[in-house]
Amino acid sequence: MAKKIDPWGSNLVKDYQKVVDDFGLDKFNIKDFPDPNRMMRRGIIFAGRELKTIANCIKEKKPFYVLSGIMPTNDKIHFGNKQVVENIRYFQDHGGKAYILIADLEAAATRGVSLKEAKRRAIEFHIPAYIVLGLDPKKTKFYFQSENKDVTNLAALFSRKVTANEFKAIYGSIDPGKVFASLTQCGDMLYPQLKKRMPGIIPVGIDQEPHIRLCRDIISRTKNMKFQPLGSMYHEFMPALNGDLKMSKSHPESNLDLPEDPKIACKKINRALTGGRDTLEEHRKKGAIIENDMVFKLLKYHLIEDDKELAKIYVEYKSGRMTSGEIKKIACGKMTAFMKDFENKLKKARPLAKKMFSSK
Amino acid sequence: MAKKIDPWGSNLVKDYQKVVDDFGLDKFNIKDFPDPNRMMRRGIIFAGRELKTIANCIKEKKPFYVLSGIMPTNDKIHFGNKQVVENIRYFQDHGGKAYILIADLEAAATRGVSLKEAKRRAIEFHIPAYIVLGLDPKKTKFYFQSENKDVTNLAALFSRKVTANEFKAIYGSIDPGKVFASLTQCGDMLYPQLKKRMPGIIPVGIDQEPHIRLCRDIISRTKNMKFQPLGSMYHEFMPALNGDLKMSKSHPESNLDLPEDPKIACKKINRALTGGRDTLEEHRKKGAIIENDMVFKLLKYHLIEDDKELAKIYVEYKSGRMTSGEIKKIACGKMTAFMKDFENKLKKARPLAKKMFSSK
Repeated sequence: MAKKIDPWGSNLVKDYQKVVDDFGLDKFNIKDFPDPNRMMRRGIIFAGRELKTIANCIKEKKPFYVLSGIMPTNDKIHFGNKQVVENIRYFQDHGGKAYILIADLEAAATRGVSLKEAKRRAIEFHIPAYIVLGLDPKKTKFYFQSENKDVTNLAALFSRKVTANEFKAIYGSIDPGKVFASLTQCGDMLYPQLKKRMPGIIPVGIDQEPHIRLCRDIISRTKNMKFQPLGSMYHEFMPALNGDLKMSKSHPESNLDLPEDPKIACKKINRALTGGRDTLEEHRKKGAIIENDMVFKLLKYHLIEDDKELAKIYVEYKSGRMTSGEIKKIACGKMTAFMKDFENKLKKARPLAKKMFSSK
Repeated sequence: MAKKIDPWGSNLVKDYQKVVDDFGLDKFNIKDFPDPNRMMRRGIIFAGRELKTIANCIKEKKPFYVLSGIMPTNDKIHFGNKQVVENIRYFQDHGGKAYILIADLEAAATRGVSLKEAKRRAIEFHIPAYIVLGLDPKKTKFYFQSENKDVTNLAALFSRKVTANEFKAIYGSIDPGKVFASLTQCGDMLYPQLKKRMPGIIPVGIDQEPHIRLCRDIISRTKNMKFQPLGSMYHEFMPALNGDLKMSKSHPESNLDLPEDPKIACKKINRALTGGRDTLEEHRKKGAIIENDMVFKLLKYHLIEDDKELAKIYVEYKSGRMTSGEIKKIACGKMTAFMKDFENKLKKARPLAKKMFSSK
């Protein structure tokens, strides 16, 4: 029996390789993708589905799309979402048509956020933030789930193509709320194909694999609709600063959000789990245990773009010439610059987002 | 354990009284309703929910609504739908705001009718037919499920308010297609309250009771939305002409549709199950067994409005003075007149329906 991944829970995936094998995912092959981004180069992206199909679209300049969603439950986004946006940007830069859905329906159903409030948050914060993180506002289609009838019409059709047993096998649950949300998500994921049939890719955390699997099954059962393949690209989670496998709002001291007061972010960095040794003497002698170092991970996942710069820190830190105090100082400096830049750019991006929806 | 009724299957209700008891329905009390219509006067309407609430709205001229749906799967409507429309008309005539949803999403999902084709059928036939059967086109709001995002937005919210176990208890099934359809139906049934909170009534066959129950449960769990009570009014099915408890498309010779060639309708009437005796002598002596007479039922349910006229036929037929040949002739005459009148009026109603949607 296939292993279950729960996209709604906190069932963490400890062994990514096992997931790749269990679900028969495609391993990510960096050679297939031109100008690989930071996460591709650093092995943070590890697998996907239909990766060759999408690589081929890029190579042959054939149309394809890339899609993700925003859940406007508050006026912050999780630091990990930055990874998703940067991956969308990668595909947008390589010819993909980008779609961002605002999951206001799901925010209303699961968190009691009114549609009006969700819209305000999306326009004032989330959409500008996604623009700041690299999406081209002119080339990205943002839409609200609650305003897109094509999506729910697809969901209604798809509801007849899956059985309760299949839901149970994929999700381990047949909760009506989850059934409704999953079918709506599949509607979202195939919506770009209503205008034009073309392959699509969803860059996403591995915890969302079940949604991809369900939707791929639905494609195979709606052959008359002639949908093109739906692919995915999975990245590792940035761990929590205390070393937990995933950041969580229930441990705010180890969790990073966007935006965040740089002083508070630095405080969190200073308290993070590091691979530094107990004494300076021991550290100089043995060097840092980099695999256990959350600050280095932060640099690797997010804060340092230049591979050479990162490699230099790696060597220095691993050899013990650099201390965890020093690496924390670097991370704090980079984080402060990033946050200030983000805030400045956010102010400029806001009018763009407002304009986008003013004529509607 | 409560008895299950399956709104999708052909699980027939043989003992209406038992249903009233099992589900704790309100018995229909004719004294509560002014100017009772044909079905009310003849005991064809037997139960409901919130009947006193609606009766009170009528009495005190408080706002309420009445709602039903059209499934545009072909260019005919079932003769039994006539009953529903006449009941909607009753409430419309007594101050209720009438809503008719066209279940094009469900037609697409369950029967593969494209949304475009469903729309064509609804505008060319179903909506005009409902107007011919008595609805005031100026006072009735017709809408398409696929174009009403408020309905699916409600359905998304409601999906979080029910559990899989509850679905199983109410429907005996947790099929995703049925889950989706039921939640959408509840969205439809409460949609009129988004503009104004007011009680509503759904005149419907008893087989739809589960949908009403589910939606009433959802109301009780979304107290913050302040929905007013949702009521229902149940009528007996007109039996099939061969005496089967319900007309069915799989027995076309016993099934009546609208429109129908009057000659074919008369043929069906002539072959119907009657309560006439084997010989004329016996018939004159013992009279007809009216309870078993489908032609009399047809007069009672549909073709004779005037109670005195019906009572006269009852007395004559039961006494044996009237034969089943004679009652068939009466039914055939009435049916022919009805069908011709329907066709004539349909032609006039078509432009009204087209105009209704031309500006949209």
